[in-house]
Amino acid sequence: MRTFQSFPRLAQIALHWGLILLLLGVSVGSICALFLWLLDQVTQLRFLHPSLLFGLPVAGIGVALLYQRYGGRAAAGNNLIIDEIHKPGGGVPFCMAPLVLFGTVISHLFGASVGREGTAVQIGGSFAAAIGRLFRLNDRAMRLFLMAGIAAGFGAVFGTPVAGAIFGLEVLTLGRLDYAALLPVAVASIVADWTCHAWGIHHAAYHVGFRGIPSADGTMFHVDALLLVKVSFAAVCFGLASRAFASGVHRLAGIFQKLCPPAWLRPALGGVLTILLAGLLGTRDYLGLGVTSPDIDGASIMNFFGHGYYPWSWFWKLVFTLVALASGFKGGEVTPLFFIGAGLGNALSPVLGVPADLLAGVGFVAVFAGAANTPLACTFMAIELFGATDVVYYAAGCFIAYLASGHSGIYQAQRIGTPKT
Amino acid sequence: MRTFQSFPRLAQIALHWGLILLLLGVSVGSICALFLWLLDQVTQLRFLHPSLLFGLPVAGIGVALLYQRYGGRAAAGNNLIIDEIHKPGGGVPFCMAPLVLFGTVISHLFGASVGREGTAVQIGGSFAAAIGRLFRLNDRAMRLFLMAGIAAGFGAVFGTPVAGAIFGLEVLTLGRLDYAALLPVAVASIVADWTCHAWGIHHAAYHVGFRGIPSADGTMFHVDALLLVKVSFAAVCFGLASRAFASGVHRLAGIFQKLCPPAWLRPALGGVLTILLAGLLGTRDYLGLGVTSPDIDGASIMNFFGHGYYPWSWFWKLVFTLVALASGFKGGEVTPLFFIGAGLGNALSPVLGVPADLLAGVGFVAVFAGAANTPLACTFMAIELFGATDVVYYAAGCFIAYLASGHSGIYQAQRIGTPKT
Repeated sequence: MRTFQSFPRLAQIALHWGLILLLLGVSVGSICALFLWLLDQVTQLRFLHPSLLFGLPVAGIGVALLYQRYGGRAAAGNNLIIDEIHKPGGGVPFCMAPLVLFGTVISHLFGASVGREGTAVQIGGSFAAAIGRLFRLNDRAMRLFLMAGIAAGFGAVFGTPVAGAIFGLEVLTLGRLDYAALLPVAVASIVADWTCHAWGIHHAAYHVGFRGIPSADGTMFHVDALLLVKVSFAAVCFGLASRAFASGVHRLAGIFQKLCPPAWLRPALGGVLTILLAGLLGTRDYLGLGVTSPDIDGASIMNFFGHGYYPWSWFWKLVFTLVALASGFKGGEVTPLFFIGAGLGNALSPVLGVPADLLAGVGFVAVFAGAANTPLACTFMAIELFGATDVVYYAAGCFIAYLASGHSGIYQAQRIGTPKT
Repeated sequence: MRTFQSFPRLAQIALHWGLILLLLGVSVGSICALFLWLLDQVTQLRFLHPSLLFGLPVAGIGVALLYQRYGGRAAAGNNLIIDEIHKPGGGVPFCMAPLVLFGTVISHLFGASVGREGTAVQIGGSFAAAIGRLFRLNDRAMRLFLMAGIAAGFGAVFGTPVAGAIFGLEVLTLGRLDYAALLPVAVASIVADWTCHAWGIHHAAYHVGFRGIPSADGTMFHVDALLLVKVSFAAVCFGLASRAFASGVHRLAGIFQKLCPPAWLRPALGGVLTILLAGLLGTRDYLGLGVTSPDIDGASIMNFFGHGYYPWSWFWKLVFTLVALASGFKGGEVTPLFFIGAGLGNALSPVLGVPADLLAGVGFVAVFAGAANTPLACTFMAIELFGATDVVYYAAGCFIAYLASGHSGIYQAQRIGTPKT
C-alpha cells in the first residue's frame, strides 16, 4: 500500500532527478563535443606544423601559471572530485572545467603525451557541482550527482555510455561497487553520449576482426581453452604495465619535485625532456593522443589493430606519458593507457601466437583496468568498442590485469574497499 | 621488493587455487551437461506423451517425501548456499546435488512450470562445499569457493560465462558488489561453461535482429532517444512483473501452507491446480521450461522473438510458475522469468511501437534482473546471448527494472547492502 500512497511523491522525485540529469547530460555532452572537436583541430594542426613541439616547455609554464593564479583547489583534478564524493568538503570549483579544457587543448597542440579522460571527468564533475549548487542538492544527493558527472564525462568522451556509467560507480572505491547511483550515472552517461553524437562528433572505430576459432565440425564457440590461457598470460603482463605506469607517475613526480621545486617551472623540464626524447627516437608517434599517427605506418592505437608489428612502442609511450604527467601537463591518463595496452598486445601477439587485433583489444582495456582499478567498466568498454564476440577474453584480461596491478592506481583519492589479496 | 620476495608463495597460491577451481569447473560443468541433456530428454518425452501431466501430483509427493527423508538442510536450496557464504554454519550437504537434480528432472518430466538455475546453482554450491572440505579450505577461502560454485553452475547452465561470474558476486548482497572473488568466479564459470560445451551440449540461440535505427544520412548510432524512452517505460513494467513474481511466490507459499499443513502433500495441491489450469486454458505452453513449445506457433521464449503476438502468455506463465514453486516443486525461477519477461516484451512491443525482438530481449533479462536483484549479471547475459549492438537498451532495462522491483527478491537469504531508494 505504501507504494501507492507515495506514488505522487515518487513521480515528483523522478521528474526532478530526470530534469537535472538531463541538464547535466546535455551540458557535459556539449562541452565534451567541443573538447573533442578542439582536440581534433589542434592534433591536425600539430601534424601539419611539427615545430610546434618546440613551444611545449613555454606552453607548459603558461598553463601552470594560469592554474597557480586562478586554479586554487581545481589543480587537484580528478582526485578532488573523488574526495568530494567520499567526504563532501569545500566543493568542486566551476573554474575547473574551463581551466582543464584549455590546459588539455594546449598540451595537445604542443604535443605533450597526455590523454583526455581526466579532462572529461573534470568537466563532468565541475558541471555537476555547479548544477547541484543551483538546485540546492543536499550532501547525499550531491554525491550521487557528482558520480553522474564523472559518468557523463567519461561516457561522452569515449562514446561508451554503459562503460561511462559503470566507471562512475567503480572508480571511487577499489574492490567494491555500490548501486546507490546506478540509475543517475546511466542516465547522465547515456544523455551526454547522445548529445555529443548529436553535435556531429564521431569516435574512432577500432576493428577487432577475430571471431573465434572454428572447431572440427565448423561450429564456433565463445572461448578456446588454449587461447584463453595465452590471453591470461598476456593479461598478467598488462597488469604489470598498469603497475609500472601508476607507480611510475607517482615516483617520477617526486623526482621532478626535487629537481625543480617551483611547480610552475616543472612543465618546462617535462617539455624539454619530451623534445629530447622525440629527437633521439626521431619520431613524433609518442606525442599527443596517439589514436592516429602523422605517418601512415607510424605507431598508433589504430595501427596496433592492423598488420604492422610494433615491439617497443608501448614502452616509449609509457616513458613519454610519465614525463608529461609527472611534470604537470594537463590531460588524462586513459588514452595513453589505451596506447600502451594495445601496443603491448600487438608486441606480445606473435610471441604468444594470438591474433594481433584480439590481443590489442584486450590490452587496450586491460592496462586501463589495472591502472584505474575498474575491471567491470573496462569490460563494458571493450564490448561497446569491439563487440560481444570475444567478451570472455576481454573480461579475463581486465580481471587478471586488475589483480596483477597491485593497490597503487592512477587515482590516489580512490579508497580501498576490498584489498586484492 | 615484497612482491619479488613473495613470488614463490604467490605462485604456490595461484597453482593451488587454479587446480581446485579447475576441478570445480570441470565437475560442475559435467554435471550441468548431464542435467541439460536429461532436461532435453524428459521435455521431448513429455511433448510426446501429454498424459504424463496427470502424474504431476503423485510425482510431486514422491520428490517431497524423498527430501523429507534424505534432504535435511538441503531443502533450503539456494538460500542455504547464500547463507553459508554470509555466515558459515553447518555447511552445504553434498546430497543437495543429486536430490535437486533428480527432483528437477521429475518436475520437468511431468510438466511443472519451473526453471533450472536453482538446480545448477545448488549443484555448483554442493560440489564447491565438497571439494572445499576435501582440500580443507578455511572459512574465508570456503566463502570465495562457494561463490565460485554458484558462478560455475550459472555460467554452465545458461552458456553465459561472464554473466555467471558476475552473478556469483552480485546475488549475495542487494545493491553492492564485492571484488574479493572476482577471479575465482570467472575461472570457475568459464571452465564449467567450456566443459559443458565439450560434452556436446548446445544452448538455445535467441535471435535479436534489431540493429538500431539508421539516421537521415544512413549512419547507425547505438542509441535512439525516443526508442530508449519507450524501452525505459517498458522496463518499469518489467520491474513490476519482477515484484509481482517475487512477492507472489512468498505469499502463495504462505497460503498453500495454511491450506495444506503437511509439506509433502503440498506438491499434490500444486499438481492438481496445474492440471486444472492447463485444461481450462487448453494449452500445454505454460508447462516445463517454455524455451520451445510442442506447437510450432505456441507461446514459447523462442517464439516471443519472432513475428507472433502473445498478449497474455506472460501472465499465465506467471500464474503456472507461482503455483509450481509455491507448492514446493524443485527447479529454479530463472527460465520462467525469462519467459515472463520475453512474453511481456512481446506483448508490449506493438503497444509501444518497439521491435518485438528487441523488447523480448530486454524483457528476458530485465524481469530476471528485477527479481534476483542482479542488474549487472543480467546486462552481461544479454550481451552474451544477444550481442553488443543494443547494449544500452539492455543496461537501461536491467537497471530500471532493478530499481522498480522493490526489495523483495526471489532469494530471501540475500542481504540488503545498499537500499534502492
